[in-house]
Amino acid sequence: MKQSLLFTKTRKDAPKDEVSKNAQLLIRAGFIHKEMAGVYSLLPLGLRVINNIKSIVADEMENIGSGEIIMSTIQNKEVWEKTDRWDDKKVDVWFKSKINGGSEIGFGWSHEEPITEMMKNFVSSYKDLPIYVHQFQNKLRNEVRAKSGIMRCREFIMKDMYAFSKTREENDVFYSNAQTAYMNVFNRVGLGDITYITSASGGVFSNEFSHEFQTVCDAGEDIIYVNETKKIALNKEIFNEKTLSDMGMKEEDFVTKKVAEVGNIFNFGTEKCEKLELFFKENDGTKKPVFLSSYGIGITRLMGVIAEVLSDDKGLVWPKEVSPFDIHLISIEDKEGKVKAEAQKLYDRLIKSGKTVLFDDRDMRAGEKFADSDLIGIPTRIVISEKTIKEDSVEVKDRKTGNTEMIKNERI
Amino acid sequence: MKQSLLFTKTRKDAPKDEVSKNAQLLIRAGFIHKEMAGVYSLLPLGLRVINNIKSIVADEMENIGSGEIIMSTIQNKEVWEKTDRWDDKKVDVWFKSKINGGSEIGFGWSHEEPITEMMKNFVSSYKDLPIYVHQFQNKLRNEVRAKSGIMRCREFIMKDMYAFSKTREENDVFYSNAQTAYMNVFNRVGLGDITYITSASGGVFSNEFSHEFQTVCDAGEDIIYVNETKKIALNKEIFNEKTLSDMGMKEEDFVTKKVAEVGNIFNFGTEKCEKLELFFKENDGTKKPVFLSSYGIGITRLMGVIAEVLSDDKGLVWPKEVSPFDIHLISIEDKEGKVKAEAQKLYDRLIKSGKTVLFDDRDMRAGEKFADSDLIGIPTRIVISEKTIKEDSVEVKDRKTGNTEMIKNERI
Repeated sequence: MKQSLLFTKTRKDAPKDEVSKNAQLLIRAGFIHKEMAGVYSLLPLGLRVINNIKSIVADEMENIGSGEIIMSTIQNKEVWEKTDRWDDKKVDVWFKSKINGGSEIGFGWSHEEPITEMMKNFVSSYKDLPIYVHQFQNKLRNEVRAKSGIMRCREFIMKDMYAFSKTREENDVFYSNAQTAYMNVFNRVGLGDITYITSASGGVFSNEFSHEFQTVCDAGEDIIYVNETKKIALNKEIFNEKTLSDMGMKEEDFVTKKVAEVGNIFNFGTEKCEKLELFFKENDGTKKPVFLSSYGIGITRLMGVIAEVLSDDKGLVWPKEVSPFDIHLISIEDKEGKVKAEAQKLYDRLIKSGKTVLFDDRDMRAGEKFADSDLIGIPTRIVISEKTIKEDSVEVKDRKTGNTEMIKNERI
Repeated sequence: MKQSLLFTKTRKDAPKDEVSKNAQLLIRAGFIHKEMAGVYSLLPLGLRVINNIKSIVADEMENIGSGEIIMSTIQNKEVWEKTDRWDDKKVDVWFKSKINGGSEIGFGWSHEEPITEMMKNFVSSYKDLPIYVHQFQNKLRNEVRAKSGIMRCREFIMKDMYAFSKTREENDVFYSNAQTAYMNVFNRVGLGDITYITSASGGVFSNEFSHEFQTVCDAGEDIIYVNETKKIALNKEIFNEKTLSDMGMKEEDFVTKKVAEVGNIFNFGTEKCEKLELFFKENDGTKKPVFLSSYGIGITRLMGVIAEVLSDDKGLVWPKEVSPFDIHLISIEDKEGKVKAEAQKLYDRLIKSGKTVLFDDRDMRAGEKFADSDLIGIPTRIVISEKTIKEDSVEVKDRKTGNTEMIKNERI
């Protein structure tokens, strides 16, 4: 894509009311636009990052046998009343409204209830199970505080996955596969080294476990307790005497880390399906409730954490697989316009070889182009100028390390 | 994809409260699930169709220079008050709610206002224009009536595109390109022959025109007036004495057709940008308001119209480019299980050749499999059975024409 056709521009300052580093950087670099506190629109560069993250997540979820669907945003009051999660006193993040001349509706902040309700159309026998489905949903949550940029929004994209199983054992196999798939995701988006599978409610040795995926991040809202040697991470909620004594460990064995939650896994057991009456007939004719677990990854939140954690003082630093483009090609113009023609040739060649390229073809000083490029944070920058053309070369710079080398044209 | 892994099942009857043919068929075939009147979730088959339509539309919009973004669903009251479109008396399809301890918000039924407001961050000089952007949005509209299945929903996916131009002339060039792009879309989704570019408000010879794309459809809500020889179509609103006399034509020169609107184009002129104060500085330093036009295609609506118009008494009939799969491969089992192995080989070979295949590997009677296949409506059906294996062939059936032929295995 030619940068002259990109309508967004970088800016020196973020809006004054934007206090979070992730949103400040993403706004300044032209990835997102702030509509109001906790509500952002995605500009072309931001949408490309989100689509890359989505495609990594979709890939890993399909690998463990999940099929993609998309549930509605508008929610049926009656369905949520069955599990007592409609009342604002029980769930305080509902946005609600009313159909003209009709009933009250809610806007989806989560989807366990409607998806379980829907499955009653498709599940009757043990032969119909297990079922694994996921969706990329625009969730709406009426958060009181929304000050962490795109890490905690009133509107955000979430991947939520649901596993409907016959038994706890069948569920546990998928649960374990999903843990692996989740770590694959965090590795691929560049956060693997600093992301911990953290035991949450129920304790490590209990069957009623749940897990959070926590990434080390100064702007995070949580604290976890980590023992690196034993590869154990516990959240605040379960870091207590009972858990420690169950594990035969002491408080001193752990260090604390400030973290942001990037994923979570819940076992609902059979409770949810009993309330919503999702049953199946066993081989021997007995009627049993379905076992449900759910698996979330905040997609926009993940973009925020990457921006927060992997940036430096010059701007964003995208890992390869999530970067909006593979290459930022920058032409430094001479007076005769020779460079532009060579740059265009190189651009065409790179595109042909299957690379995605942002081509800075704008009439602008080199210094400004470099500053923009650092702020936008594409992993590889290629500079072509009168000087490099003389040497039949281009200058290749790695955004992360800052390493620069001249590479012969024919090797690009 | 193996059909045994698809959690949806076909059903003999649609829900009793579902009166529209498109939703009845799509529900029976397992493409959509009804949450409530006018609100549907997309199941794996339906999502595949929607993704195909989106990808055709994205392709054609990018071809005319538009870039993709995604605006927020949550809407700022103040922005809509500037154009007097917040008041329920002015716009009767708003869903509204309130931020916890904060201000009133709306849910996006349209996006001209926020997108124009946002552009104030990026437009200052004539050098910044024109700008073309589009998005695929989950629109929410508080419709009183919602009885046409997925043709008129309270929640639906829309592609909306916006052109910000310096002058009417610049706008008109894009307007004309967009008309062509739109007809390309309708051709590619199989509705080209029965879709008319219909002049709406302002009349054919006026500059203040707008156009609708209307597809002949019994379930449609509109009537248009068509003169096939002169390739003219007029909507009800402008089919009057003045328009006819301007054109030198008579009422008898036209025939009426029942139609469904699948796309529309509006020129807002400079009015919207004046109200929202989106100005630019001309070459000569003068300040001018930006010229805005907008371009809509209802994506889920399009799926509904295709289902409505191109189906037959046996079920859905998908055109090639929108079909959830290229091929429906059906194996008719023998007792020894030889067919299954051959079918699996053929499936692998088809996938390898780049085809998308739904493989009916279920243990079920041939008759039931064929009925399901007709209902689901994939364009090409390939049957492999003991009989075809003996002849070293498969049976290939065209869903639309019903034509069947035996084709040698090596030619597939």
